[in-house]
Amino acid sequence: MKPESGVTIVEVGPRDGLQNLTTQVKTEDKVRLIEWLAASGLREIQIGAFVNSGAIPQFRDIKEVAACVRDLSGVTLTALVPNLRGAQTAFESGIRKLIFFFSISRSHNLNNVQQTTAASLEALASIMKIFSSHPDTTICAALATVFGCPFEGFFPTDAILRYVEAVADMDITEVTLCDTVGFGNPGQVGEITRACMEKFPEVTFGVHLHNTRGLGLANALKAYETGIRIFDAAVGGLGGCPFAPGASGNIATEDIVFMFNQMGVETGVHLEKLLDATQYLQDILPDMPLTSALFHAGLPKWVDGNEFPRLKEQP
Amino acid sequence: MKPESGVTIVEVGPRDGLQNLTTQVKTEDKVRLIEWLAASGLREIQIGAFVNSGAIPQFRDIKEVAACVRDLSGVTLTALVPNLRGAQTAFESGIRKLIFFFSISRSHNLNNVQQTTAASLEALASIMKIFSSHPDTTICAALATVFGCPFEGFFPTDAILRYVEAVADMDITEVTLCDTVGFGNPGQVGEITRACMEKFPEVTFGVHLHNTRGLGLANALKAYETGIRIFDAAVGGLGGCPFAPGASGNIATEDIVFMFNQMGVETGVHLEKLLDATQYLQDILPDMPLTSALFHAGLPKWVDGNEFPRLKEQP
Repeated sequence: MKPESGVTIVEVGPRDGLQNLTTQVKTEDKVRLIEWLAASGLREIQIGAFVNSGAIPQFRDIKEVAACVRDLSGVTLTALVPNLRGAQTAFESGIRKLIFFFSISRSHNLNNVQQTTAASLEALASIMKIFSSHPDTTICAALATVFGCPFEGFFPTDAILRYVEAVADMDITEVTLCDTVGFGNPGQVGEITRACMEKFPEVTFGVHLHNTRGLGLANALKAYETGIRIFDAAVGGLGGCPFAPGASGNIATEDIVFMFNQMGVETGVHLEKLLDATQYLQDILPDMPLTSALFHAGLPKWVDGNEFPRLKEQP
Repeated sequence: MKPESGVTIVEVGPRDGLQNLTTQVKTEDKVRLIEWLAASGLREIQIGAFVNSGAIPQFRDIKEVAACVRDLSGVTLTALVPNLRGAQTAFESGIRKLIFFFSISRSHNLNNVQQTTAASLEALASIMKIFSSHPDTTICAALATVFGCPFEGFFPTDAILRYVEAVADMDITEVTLCDTVGFGNPGQVGEITRACMEKFPEVTFGVHLHNTRGLGLANALKAYETGIRIFDAAVGGLGGCPFAPGASGNIATEDIVFMFNQMGVETGVHLEKLLDATQYLQDILPDMPLTSALFHAGLPKWVDGNEFPRLKEQP
């Protein structure tokens, strides 16, 4: 993979896709799903969140999952951590890329991780104090509600930049800008990503976009045009509210890989194998409507080695 | 509506959305649907196709539908016509904007309208001969398979430009570039629309994009960035193959209007009223899975007059 011309698709399905499910997915099914995803060529997979299992029961087996997949070769495993304890457990479980998440919205942060944004930043500082010296360990920051919050609305770009500055000042060099509830639009995504990249050239930015109202790929395209090269996505488009049938969740990994594939942008992902992973997901969650358009429409016959004719002349 | 800053969304649901349905929609339901769509502020609606009713049984009542809606005020009604007879019948039925369609793919054209592309161009010339002098009557050309054909693959941009030239030479000034089967991707859509607009500045181009594999809105965004201001879309995202459940068809009108609305680009369409039209569509086709993301997720509370707070400061 050529980082200068390609993109990195970060698979967050095992985390963001599963976390809201009321069905408890079996540990071995989670492990097998992660293995299918890795086999498709995805090079970064978020396996879950190290949180209080009371908060998200789906992740009560996160340590077992991590133990089963920690030796998967060729793939960087990541996990969400909201605090120092979570970071320590993740590290002990063999995870070497920790994604510290907090909302730039005070209300959403209180709701989500039961602490103020200021307290989250203090927790991040304590994590950096311990882990920044660990070789092979990376601490990233995921800033939630950057593109809008269900409680507080839209934030001025300056406010967003202040939070990025707060984490950049801690020497964090990888930041994910998250459209937590799918409020983003291409104009705003372009404006915010451009402002962040211009002000913090030393930081590598990724985006985590939801497809709640269908704008996911348009927002991703805009972010790509702005220069973003790291995109979160979830297999099958999982991650929507399970109580809104038909509503889309995360950008579907299949669809964003297909988009870049068709644009000639390298992702390193083999689409047929990825669709095998989607089929496995559907097999373990047979009643879950998956919103990936590619999964439903199928791969066009000319993809993955079958060159489609390109006519030179028309009769 | 300000044409210089806004976009025109052409509603093609009554035509492209219904044409593949095996269910025959009642004439009064089609009429009522068109009325709902017009009430939402859509200013151009494609009511059907004047074709042999053996070819598309759904349009066997097209003259009755036209008779019922021809006096709808404030909306331009259009219809597809594949030949002179269709154009004459459409004109007699009160339609004053005729969309002549043909495929730039010989195989697809033979399959679709049973004549060669050359024969289609002759038919268009004969239509222009009769109708170009009619006041208040506009003949447009819709070029199918511009972004790829299931039989012949992808066409070089030069070949596409030759077909645009053929219709521009007949003094046609409005051309729709159609992604008939959803093969387009943003890179290619940008390349083709840019080439067309640069070479034929006297022609107004629109795009007709499908969302078969989820790229519809990303392609539309790219076309918008290139300078396209006319977009076909179908209420509910109808228009997919009815035999591929869950597969998307046309770009959903709700979703593209929402995208532009959120970007601050004027469409003239009232989203709540548009969703009433979608609900009506769902009522008359209760078993049809609609793929509009906005229809499923619902309108965010801050749209259409309910200003969402934009915080100046974060605690």
